[in-house]
Amino acid sequence: MNFSQRLRNAQDRSGSLLCIGLDPDERLLPPGLRGRRNPAAAFNRLIVEATEDLVCAYKLNLAFYEAMGAGGRRALEETLAAIPSRVITIGDGKRGDIGNSSELYARALFKDLGFDACTVNPYMGRDSVEPFTADERRGAFLLAATSNPGAGDFQNLRVRGRPLYEEVIRRAVQWNTRGNIGFVVGATQPAALARACALAPGAPLLIPGIGAQGGDLPGAVRSGCDAEGRMAVLNAGRSVLYASAGRDFAEAAREAALDLHRTIGSLLPPRGDRAR
Amino acid sequence: MNFSQRLRNAQDRSGSLLCIGLDPDERLLPPGLRGRRNPAAAFNRLIVEATEDLVCAYKLNLAFYEAMGAGGRRALEETLAAIPSRVITIGDGKRGDIGNSSELYARALFKDLGFDACTVNPYMGRDSVEPFTADERRGAFLLAATSNPGAGDFQNLRVRGRPLYEEVIRRAVQWNTRGNIGFVVGATQPAALARACALAPGAPLLIPGIGAQGGDLPGAVRSGCDAEGRMAVLNAGRSVLYASAGRDFAEAAREAALDLHRTIGSLLPPRGDRAR
Repeated sequence: MNFSQRLRNAQDRSGSLLCIGLDPDERLLPPGLRGRRNPAAAFNRLIVEATEDLVCAYKLNLAFYEAMGAGGRRALEETLAAIPSRVITIGDGKRGDIGNSSELYARALFKDLGFDACTVNPYMGRDSVEPFTADERRGAFLLAATSNPGAGDFQNLRVRGRPLYEEVIRRAVQWNTRGNIGFVVGATQPAALARACALAPGAPLLIPGIGAQGGDLPGAVRSGCDAEGRMAVLNAGRSVLYASAGRDFAEAAREAALDLHRTIGSLLPPRGDRAR
Repeated sequence: MNFSQRLRNAQDRSGSLLCIGLDPDERLLPPGLRGRRNPAAAFNRLIVEATEDLVCAYKLNLAFYEAMGAGGRRALEETLAAIPSRVITIGDGKRGDIGNSSELYARALFKDLGFDACTVNPYMGRDSVEPFTADERRGAFLLAATSNPGAGDFQNLRVRGRPLYEEVIRRAVQWNTRGNIGFVVGATQPAALARACALAPGAPLLIPGIGAQGGDLPGAVRSGCDAEGRMAVLNAGRSVLYASAGRDFAEAAREAALDLHRTIGSLLPPRGDRAR
C-alpha cells in the first residue's frame, strides 16, 4: 500500500483531516511537568492521549528536538512510541542533500525513527528528493509554497511565466511514480493551494498555518481536498498545545482540537461514511 | 570579529584553503577501529590529528551523524572536541525553516554544538535565513549552485533572464549586513563560481566536489579566490578519508591532504606571507 493510500485510510478511520504539530517549546511547558526526567516527551504523551482520536496525523518539527541537545533524540523516540500506529507520523525536518546524504537522512527518519513521512526541501533537485520516495509506503512532502513571511522571496519568482513553486509541483508530479509525493502549501496561501490541487490532483497536501499563524481555514479545506474531502492534512501547533498554560492543558488541547475538527467537518461536503 | 574575518585568519594561519569533510561512513571505517566504543569519533579524531595543520576548516555533514542513531550526537560532540579552535568548523545540515524553527536550529548548531558556520537552504526566503546570521562571528553558507546531478532542476531555471542561483546570491548579498553570509557553489560548476565571485566579491565560498566528485580544482581556485587568494573553502571528503582502507589510513589521509594542499598552493598567485 503506498503512502497516499495509507494517509487516506488514516483519514477515513479517524474521520479527520487534522494534524497536530508536536513541537514542545520548553519555555511554554506547564509548570507541573518541568521536574520530569524528559518533560517534552511527557507533555507530548499527554497531548497524544488527549487527542489521538481526533487526528489523522502528528507532525514533529525536528528543530524543536535538536534544540533540546543530547536529550532531544530520546524525546523524539518516546513521543513516536506514544503515537498509535494507525495515526500517520510526519518528521518535519525539511531535509535535502546530494543523493548519498539524502539516503542517510531517509534511513534515519524512516528506518531508525520509524516516521511514516517527512518534509523535503526541493532546491537541490531530483536526486536529492528520490531517496525519500524509494519506499512507496513512506511519503515525502516537498516544500512548495510555505506559510512564512519570506516565502515569496524565491518561491514566487516567475519562471516560464509562473511562480517557482508551480515548477516544483510540475516536476515532482513527473517524479511521483510510487504515489508517495505530496506538497507543503501554507494555509496563508489560498492561490497556491488551488494551483497545487489543479496540478497534482489527489496528492497529499500538508497545510500548516491554520492555527496561530492565522491562515484561511475555510479556504484551505475548500482548496485542499479531493472530491471525497480527503488528502488535505491541516496542521495546527501552538493553538492546540498551549490552549491552556495550566494543569488542564491536556483537556484544553482536546477542546481546541475538537473545535478545529468540527469546524473542518462543517466545511466539508456531507459524506455517508464520515463517522464523526 | 565577523565570520569572514575569522575565516580569513584561519586561512592565513594555516596557509591553506583546504577543508576536509568529516563524514564517516560506518561501512568504510578501517577494520581496526570497528570494535571501539564510538568508531566514527575515533576515526575522525585520528584524521584530525593527521591533517589539522593542513586545513582551514572541517565540514561535518550532519546526515552521516543522524544515520548513526542515538550515538550520532556523541560522535558529533567528540569530533568537534578534537578540532583545534583555530580551525573553522562547518555544520553541513542544509537547514532552513520558518523563523522560529530556524532560530532553534541555529541555537543547536552554534550555541549547543559550537559550530563556527553552517550550510543553509534558502528556498524559504529571508526570515528562514536570518536566525543563522544573527551572530556576526558565525557564518551561514547559503546553497546557491550545488555539485549534484539534479542541481540544475531548479537552480538553473531562468528568473529575470538569469539562473535562479544568481537571484539567490543577489538577494543574500543585500541581506549580508554583518559580513557573515557565504555561498555553496560546487567545483563542478565553473560558470556559477565565476558569477558568485562577481556578484559577491570577498564573500566566503564553500566549494565541495574537488575530490571524489571530480570537480575542476584549477578552475575552482582561479574563480573562487579574492585577489589575495583567500575566501574559497575547498572541500574534499572521501578522497582523503578513504585514501587507504588499511591500518595506514591516517598517514594516507595526510598524504592525500598534503597533495591537495600543494596543488591548491601551486594554483594560487605567489604571496609573501604564505607560510607553506
